[in-house]
Amino acid sequence: MCTGRGDTLSLNVLFAALPHRWPQYRKQLEAAFAGAGVDCTLVNEIDDPARVDVIVYAPNSGLEDFGPFTNLKAVLNLWAGVEDIVDNTTLQVPLARMVDPGLTQGMIEWVTAHVLRHHLEIDLDITCPPGDWRYRVPKLASQQRVGILGLGSLGAACADALVSLGFDVAGWSRTAHDASHFPAFHGSDGLEQLIQRSDILVLLLPLTEATSDLIDAERLALLPKGAVLLNPGRGGLVDDAALLEALESGQVGHATLDTFRVEPLPPDHPFWTHPRVTVTPHIASATRPETASRVIAENVRRVAMGAPLLHLVDRGLGY
Amino acid sequence: MCTGRGDTLSLNVLFAALPHRWPQYRKQLEAAFAGAGVDCTLVNEIDDPARVDVIVYAPNSGLEDFGPFTNLKAVLNLWAGVEDIVDNTTLQVPLARMVDPGLTQGMIEWVTAHVLRHHLEIDLDITCPPGDWRYRVPKLASQQRVGILGLGSLGAACADALVSLGFDVAGWSRTAHDASHFPAFHGSDGLEQLIQRSDILVLLLPLTEATSDLIDAERLALLPKGAVLLNPGRGGLVDDAALLEALESGQVGHATLDTFRVEPLPPDHPFWTHPRVTVTPHIASATRPETASRVIAENVRRVAMGAPLLHLVDRGLGY
Repeated sequence: MCTGRGDTLSLNVLFAALPHRWPQYRKQLEAAFAGAGVDCTLVNEIDDPARVDVIVYAPNSGLEDFGPFTNLKAVLNLWAGVEDIVDNTTLQVPLARMVDPGLTQGMIEWVTAHVLRHHLEIDLDITCPPGDWRYRVPKLASQQRVGILGLGSLGAACADALVSLGFDVAGWSRTAHDASHFPAFHGSDGLEQLIQRSDILVLLLPLTEATSDLIDAERLALLPKGAVLLNPGRGGLVDDAALLEALESGQVGHATLDTFRVEPLPPDHPFWTHPRVTVTPHIASATRPETASRVIAENVRRVAMGAPLLHLVDRGLGY
Repeated sequence: MCTGRGDTLSLNVLFAALPHRWPQYRKQLEAAFAGAGVDCTLVNEIDDPARVDVIVYAPNSGLEDFGPFTNLKAVLNLWAGVEDIVDNTTLQVPLARMVDPGLTQGMIEWVTAHVLRHHLEIDLDITCPPGDWRYRVPKLASQQRVGILGLGSLGAACADALVSLGFDVAGWSRTAHDASHFPAFHGSDGLEQLIQRSDILVLLLPLTEATSDLIDAERLALLPKGAVLLNPGRGGLVDDAALLEALESGQVGHATLDTFRVEPLPPDHPFWTHPRVTVTPHIASATRPETASRVIAENVRRVAMGAPLLHLVDRGLGY
């Protein structure tokens, strides 16, 4: 049982994720609950679903029917993406997505690293034949136009880091945002404008019905010739076949992809062998148990207090 | 002739660099002189050395005897490094080194890019055999200790950028500096301490008698096992043979080198073929004609006004 300080509910918390996650998270979650002042019963197996108050949930855990959890008060997603749970009609209680400061920081590092890698053409040096002194004066960051699709917590944080390094950053979001540090576009006209000015385009949108296959042949054709595509967002944002065609024609100069429709990326997928595709194994948005556990503990505390959840998902919008 | 505004000297400026530099710099320098309000005669060839007031100087220009330039008032180095001119006894007038904002920005970009590359082990992804999904949870920047040797304008700027990205940065300089954003060591004990806590060590010292071969076998042995060495400073800072031995033993995990004792790096040098060495062709500290020309114009204006030079070299210290 999980008891918040003062006059609060007592809670049972079920950890529902693949078995290897349990040893990664158990101690970190228990420490975070203690730190947040909630004394919990945290389990990874249950006899009676009706006694579960909160589920800490990984979408690949195998749990898909929330019906038997008749006293459930909240589901706390362990990951940022909720596309595999948001349409689950058996889920009738509030759903929170993960906004892990460790994940945000990791994403900033991945995006900044790969923007700089392509900006400085570091692959030329890494793959350089011995003795080939490939001197060039690199562009400065101020001469490199980076477009960020999606200005949620991840996109905004990455944009800020790139602005600090001097890149010519612009962003796009579905609806208008305040963004004092860089130009931000919105709406469908704005999307075209953003893509047209992106030497490096970074996809950080959630995967929803509206964003599925957003980056299709037509939109890839709007990029400046030879532009670089970075996709640390979700595999489903991109039409794979259209991307491969754009790489073949040279319309896209390079694609560095961290997310895929099927993961791990199947060994026979053409992305593995394309000379101008870099596959990274979904490491940009790794949730870190230590920082994620603190976010979960805060939300469990909020359930116990009857307070609104942090990072509540709007099920209509899908994120 | 070059006339400053008001009651100032008139100056003849000689551009002494390899022939291919002249078309890169001529227009940019003329524009910068106009912008600084000095109306110059800028030439790249002369009949009478006695008529030259200022030399814009690249150390590989072939000009080594300043004796005939009997009316010379200043030499403005086109590059940051002055090790090939500072001991020239025929040079009897003030020498300025280049502190080009474009060069500083380029150095920040190179250092940040390669620190992030090694931090995230991007080479694993670039060289990954097809189908090999090498999942790992990368360290966060706060868990990566970066040491900056040299806290001049370049070192300090790189340290600031890495601190902003969250890296655990420390620096070292010969004498004590104020550095509020990160711990700074100095002196020879401080040098040992800095090296001992550097997972990634970045060399940004000037090359002087005191720093030649500074990174020798003994100091490499102080690094944490498997540390990464980045040398965008000067090739002569490192004992090449000691570095190759440390790479062989695994004491140094990788070296990414932008500067070498002989450049271009000779085709038979073992750095080219060592699997854990990346050679970049001296691109970290490229001087950009546009921004460098503004710095030169400001110093020519100062000569015309009789004002002290910016970035004056202390010939005793060697930088």
